[in-house]
Amino acid sequence: MNDERLTADELRDAWLALSSAERLDAFRLLDTESANDFFLGLSSLDQAGLVVAMANGERKLWLRLLAPDDAADLIQRLANGEKQQYLELIDPPTRAEVIALMAYAEDAAGGLMSPRFARLRPEMTAAEAIRYLQRQASEKLETLYYAYVLDPDQRLVGVVSFRELFSAPSDKRVSEVMHADLVSVPDTMDQEAVARLIAKHDLHALPVVDPEGRMKGIVTIDDMIDVAEQEATEDIHKLGGMEALDAPYMQTSMSAMIKKRASWLAVLFVGEMLTASAMGHYEHEIEKAVVLALFVPLIISSGGNSGSQAATLIIRAMALGEVAVRDWWRIIRRELGAGLLLGLILAAIGLARILLWQALFHTYGARYVEVAATVALSLVGVVTWGTIAGSMLPFVIRRAGFDPASASAPFVATMVDVSGLVIYFSVAQVVLRGSLL
Amino acid sequence: MNDERLTADELRDAWLALSSAERLDAFRLLDTESANDFFLGLSSLDQAGLVVAMANGERKLWLRLLAPDDAADLIQRLANGEKQQYLELIDPPTRAEVIALMAYAEDAAGGLMSPRFARLRPEMTAAEAIRYLQRQASEKLETLYYAYVLDPDQRLVGVVSFRELFSAPSDKRVSEVMHADLVSVPDTMDQEAVARLIAKHDLHALPVVDPEGRMKGIVTIDDMIDVAEQEATEDIHKLGGMEALDAPYMQTSMSAMIKKRASWLAVLFVGEMLTASAMGHYEHEIEKAVVLALFVPLIISSGGNSGSQAATLIIRAMALGEVAVRDWWRIIRRELGAGLLLGLILAAIGLARILLWQALFHTYGARYVEVAATVALSLVGVVTWGTIAGSMLPFVIRRAGFDPASASAPFVATMVDVSGLVIYFSVAQVVLRGSLL
Repeated sequence: MNDERLTADELRDAWLALSSAERLDAFRLLDTESANDFFLGLSSLDQAGLVVAMANGERKLWLRLLAPDDAADLIQRLANGEKQQYLELIDPPTRAEVIALMAYAEDAAGGLMSPRFARLRPEMTAAEAIRYLQRQASEKLETLYYAYVLDPDQRLVGVVSFRELFSAPSDKRVSEVMHADLVSVPDTMDQEAVARLIAKHDLHALPVVDPEGRMKGIVTIDDMIDVAEQEATEDIHKLGGMEALDAPYMQTSMSAMIKKRASWLAVLFVGEMLTASAMGHYEHEIEKAVVLALFVPLIISSGGNSGSQAATLIIRAMALGEVAVRDWWRIIRRELGAGLLLGLILAAIGLARILLWQALFHTYGARYVEVAATVALSLVGVVTWGTIAGSMLPFVIRRAGFDPASASAPFVATMVDVSGLVIYFSVAQVVLRGSLL
Repeated sequence: MNDERLTADELRDAWLALSSAERLDAFRLLDTESANDFFLGLSSLDQAGLVVAMANGERKLWLRLLAPDDAADLIQRLANGEKQQYLELIDPPTRAEVIALMAYAEDAAGGLMSPRFARLRPEMTAAEAIRYLQRQASEKLETLYYAYVLDPDQRLVGVVSFRELFSAPSDKRVSEVMHADLVSVPDTMDQEAVARLIAKHDLHALPVVDPEGRMKGIVTIDDMIDVAEQEATEDIHKLGGMEALDAPYMQTSMSAMIKKRASWLAVLFVGEMLTASAMGHYEHEIEKAVVLALFVPLIISSGGNSGSQAATLIIRAMALGEVAVRDWWRIIRRELGAGLLLGLILAAIGLARILLWQALFHTYGARYVEVAATVALSLVGVVTWGTIAGSMLPFVIRRAGFDPASASAPFVATMVDVSGLVIYFSVAQVVLRGSLL
């Protein structure tokens, strides 16, 4: 790999398979323009990985290529003792911006924003504003799409789009063209809320203000794609019954991954131990009618599966803001209907299966009608209950102040398994009394 | 609600609870500017719902407010017999654009793009280009951020950002300022691939070209947020063990929802029936040692949970492009290690539980050591196998040409349940031979 040129696409394909040292060697094979593009396109974690492997002179070059918000993200990834040393490599005015950004939580509006936005004064004319922006354009601005109108105290008084300035008569004042009723977000707002706001208002950028109303920066729509993906990944990992990983799968160390997975797995295991107790409670019934044990996995998994469907639907609808906590009553009615219907469908299939097997192989003995009835009735009960429990669990978890996405399929299944056993054996005690039990 | 004014935010909060007729009534209470913003911010499904309830005169007004790509989306939501009637309400030049867009699949680049982009000729000077764009700006352009340079055959030859034009000397030619090595996408490219490309190159817009290289439109980054959310919702629904809903949860009819849920639930149920056969195969062992039945739910759910974690991790990593099919061997080695470790952790907890219960309540009879050993050994086997199977299932499904997200937690659990039973009873036959069996 050492005596050839490499293209950015080739490096991207090989990236995951390379060690840190190999990455830097390969990166150095790119021509200058590709290297710039490639570096800017990396995640802050990968950028940090490269920069750490460099000597100070090269390091400075690449750090200075970054916009202040990206530099702040990179430096946040470093060990605490190393941050200062890297900050000193950045030119002093940018360094001040980077330090200001590092004070914010990474997932707050302040941690996402760029301090480099286009500014105007309300008393400028449209022509002056365009010329003024033309001068600012040679600096590294995050976007020229909107220009923000600030008063002498840096307080945000309006916003004007580039297009509006452009099509306005050239002697009109900015204050007459601008919109004064604008949406802004506090610098402490959570990134998920910011993303939702941008999507709701279909905006390209949102201004971020401090508690005194002074404008501190802008959050742009391209940051939001990363946020949307990141939040979806977190939810999906939680829905899989584990804690969300902090880094991509292949870059997560074995010990970090085991920690994230083992904790939930152990919690679920301890919860699932209740099934052993529940089964123990019905040991006598199982001894008398071993045929009952045969259907245990089928019955409880049906409850778990229907509960997992319901929980998943509600969790995603909540994350997208389609369903709020106050909607729980409408949802319970809807899911009660759905659960009953789904239970009846599975009961019909189960009934057909038992009667068919009995006709073909005489599997279930003389009392097969009662056994079939027990299984079918239990399925209706377990599926209905699983559906209701699955749909309500996200509400309960949110009410308790946690992320509803923790109501994962495995969590719901565990919860429904114990109650499914109780439903099944209770039905059996009624239906099979005097015959098998 | 009828004699007051309503704000857009109030309507947004009440929206989900309203019927179609109530929505139109409430919508009419907004003042003109709020109504415009509100209408443009609705999903195409909600827009269609409102417009369908209107009379033709009002309908025309709102249809003409929409950009051609949004109008095409709205009309795609209508019944086939009604589409023509709505198309005729749109002014003829826009109608031609809308019809051209409707020819594309909704989830292809052509179906997402806007035909209204800023165009330049290569021989213009920067000053001419800015004046030319100023004239185009009064039309409804999707974005002024980039201007596309087309030859006389409408073939795309370069792109120039607004900022570059702005900071270039005014007599420089567009052909000297523009970038000729630009990224473009074919009009048939899938929206997920387009989103990935935009994120990879950190672009605000991508040009869409037809097979002859003629530029047809642009896809902008704000469309991509919807795409990212939509794709994540689809994946999450599939991961919950069902088909993805086509519309928001509260707007999906009961029959559509039952169809999406019942199909997978029935498939899983039929698969899970194999557990009844497997249990039937070991009926003799259960009769001799009922204590074995008690741990069946615990053992099989542990396999399902660990498999669901592994499958979820791999599916998301695949969706984000972090893991490709060719990585399967590295992943199997990683997951083998993880599975063994997780299995040992659960085995230790299980062992402790059985020994503790035995000490406290004498639950498991004289042969409790053998029973505990059976459970612990089975847990190591089942969890390791569940982890491997869960991590490989997405690869198998993708190889077979399907969406790996179908390897849902319930699917993995069902698959692992049967094999879990076989592992458990096989271990029991070896460990308990001569004592309980």
